[in-house]
Amino acid sequence: MKNITLPTLIVDEDKCRRNIRIMATKAQNNNIIFRPHFKTHQSHAIGRWFREAGVTKITVSSLSMAQYFAQDQWEDILVAFPVNVREIHTINELASRIKLSILLADGDVMPALNKGLNQPVDFYIKIDIGTHRTGIDCADNDQITALLRETSKNRLLTFRGFVAHAGHTYQTQSLNDVNRIFVKGCELLAEVKTAFLSQYPDIIASWGDTPTCSLMEEFPLVDEIRPGNFVFYDLMQYHLGSCDWDQISVVVATPVVARHKSRNEIVLYGGAVHLSKDLLQIPNKGVVYGEVVLFTEKGWERFENPVFVERISQEHGIVHCPDEYWELFEPGRLVGVVPVHSCLSADLLRSFCDTEGMPLI
Amino acid sequence: MKNITLPTLIVDEDKCRRNIRIMATKAQNNNIIFRPHFKTHQSHAIGRWFREAGVTKITVSSLSMAQYFAQDQWEDILVAFPVNVREIHTINELASRIKLSILLADGDVMPALNKGLNQPVDFYIKIDIGTHRTGIDCADNDQITALLRETSKNRLLTFRGFVAHAGHTYQTQSLNDVNRIFVKGCELLAEVKTAFLSQYPDIIASWGDTPTCSLMEEFPLVDEIRPGNFVFYDLMQYHLGSCDWDQISVVVATPVVARHKSRNEIVLYGGAVHLSKDLLQIPNKGVVYGEVVLFTEKGWERFENPVFVERISQEHGIVHCPDEYWELFEPGRLVGVVPVHSCLSADLLRSFCDTEGMPLI
Repeated sequence: MKNITLPTLIVDEDKCRRNIRIMATKAQNNNIIFRPHFKTHQSHAIGRWFREAGVTKITVSSLSMAQYFAQDQWEDILVAFPVNVREIHTINELASRIKLSILLADGDVMPALNKGLNQPVDFYIKIDIGTHRTGIDCADNDQITALLRETSKNRLLTFRGFVAHAGHTYQTQSLNDVNRIFVKGCELLAEVKTAFLSQYPDIIASWGDTPTCSLMEEFPLVDEIRPGNFVFYDLMQYHLGSCDWDQISVVVATPVVARHKSRNEIVLYGGAVHLSKDLLQIPNKGVVYGEVVLFTEKGWERFENPVFVERISQEHGIVHCPDEYWELFEPGRLVGVVPVHSCLSADLLRSFCDTEGMPLI
Repeated sequence: MKNITLPTLIVDEDKCRRNIRIMATKAQNNNIIFRPHFKTHQSHAIGRWFREAGVTKITVSSLSMAQYFAQDQWEDILVAFPVNVREIHTINELASRIKLSILLADGDVMPALNKGLNQPVDFYIKIDIGTHRTGIDCADNDQITALLRETSKNRLLTFRGFVAHAGHTYQTQSLNDVNRIFVKGCELLAEVKTAFLSQYPDIIASWGDTPTCSLMEEFPLVDEIRPGNFVFYDLMQYHLGSCDWDQISVVVATPVVARHKSRNEIVLYGGAVHLSKDLLQIPNKGVVYGEVVLFTEKGWERFENPVFVERISQEHGIVHCPDEYWELFEPGRLVGVVPVHSCLSADLLRSFCDTEGMPLI
């Protein structure tokens, strides 16, 4: 990695492809659609690894990402974010050349859609199964019925199903909690689907989030899964229990820039503009912004006594370093930081290198 | 702002230029150098407003930013981040065409600098006056002496002075606390300078941070100030008391994408990849990620009862909205969010528009 001079996202291709393969196989075993969320990597190169694993349908979280992936021959894209009617021109442009699906979470967008839409577009209804981020309450069939009454008047819109995201699994403490959210959430999603199935016999129930898709083996009530983060995992997912350490497939390579022995601290060139300010509360430790690892010939390895990025500012990452590891951190050396939230680090750093430091294109 | 479809950083040029003018005048009145930190805006256009206010020396936090501003005729640039010796080629390249200053915070970089440097470079020593981010402890004259002994052997290196940053002002609760940090910090910085003045008669003491530079009027013990955030200010600075509300010169324009009446919540297209995950604890309110404002003909205005972004994920910002304002948030409308930390929002969004929605180039 001699050519790496700046904070850089390093991807272990073997681990990454293995994560993709495991999830693709799981979907296949359950006979459900695998529509992975590409907001995590936002990369043509990594997208192709999914294609090689048989993936043809993808999820993104913005129309800009949809445009980016459409450039690389992805032709069936769901934008899993409440439709932004200010981007109606982008919607029309994209829908004229790919199979574009949008998300409706509020009937009040209909006047603008009716006015602006001039291409056929598929849509899903976002329902809230307890995360309370966005979506129509899953118990509110009246609101869903009213929305479908409106959409049915617009021949350009085709209803494809219901989408749920169990984001509240990120606040859980145990596998039991994840399991409970999964069972209950899938039931709620399936109930909504069932209520509208006679009227729309082809609709599906689509399920998201990395913790449940990683930890559950059977998906009897849903027709599609849309996990995203699992392609990389990260420190948060590891501590949630969604993955083993060896499944984490990215680290941020950061140059050591200074050591301060009087306070046993190392300064890394790796701050909020590289790692993000997402933090993790680790038991018996406190708040951390990433775990420090050493690069090896073929990847990276943890310290026996874990070492963390404990404070962060725009460009600086501050590491408390035990005496025993001090000599490993001479300025100029490159060390790795497993990010708390890989989606945000990838969004910040924009490009990737492999474990030999060569750019992934 | 009809042309704005995506989360976009809006700059009020009048407020911004006024912030620049006030700080430039303050430096002039104190007969000290004004070397503003450009990491906050990272913009050629805004850099030119500084040039028009008489600024010729600037600070940045990375060599990449130094390269960017060198492209726009800035010729005296301090990279106020511990020198990253892996970028020695960039240092040589830049130093061959501008007056480049680097920061030394650890003598262990000297072997790499001696080996790689082939152009004359100025340097400052970073000292720690209590922030404990980086820098040699200001009381550790032995370490400073040892470092200067090493640097004096390299004829390409010219010692220019000491740099301190009072980052711990960001954790203060009152003007008294800021004042105490300022008085004590300047004393410590001046003491270090005095100790080395007979040997290096031309060295200066350079002082940073927006809270003290905004709140203090007189700077008797320092020769230079390097504030950065003051060009925009933000919600954090406002709550610290560094600025009045009307001095905040940026907001992030965010489209409303959904409303959920059952939980009185608005969903904005404005999440962690636009606002950053930096948060602020507001008394009697809790954690917030930004304050929501309405655009007016000439700028923006607050709600009488403040409205906040209370939760955030990659693309979503969730706002709890009182009944009285509900009708103002129809999907498709653009509302503003005053970011918690404008430096990070500017880094994320990369470009700016003026209050009429026209790109600043």
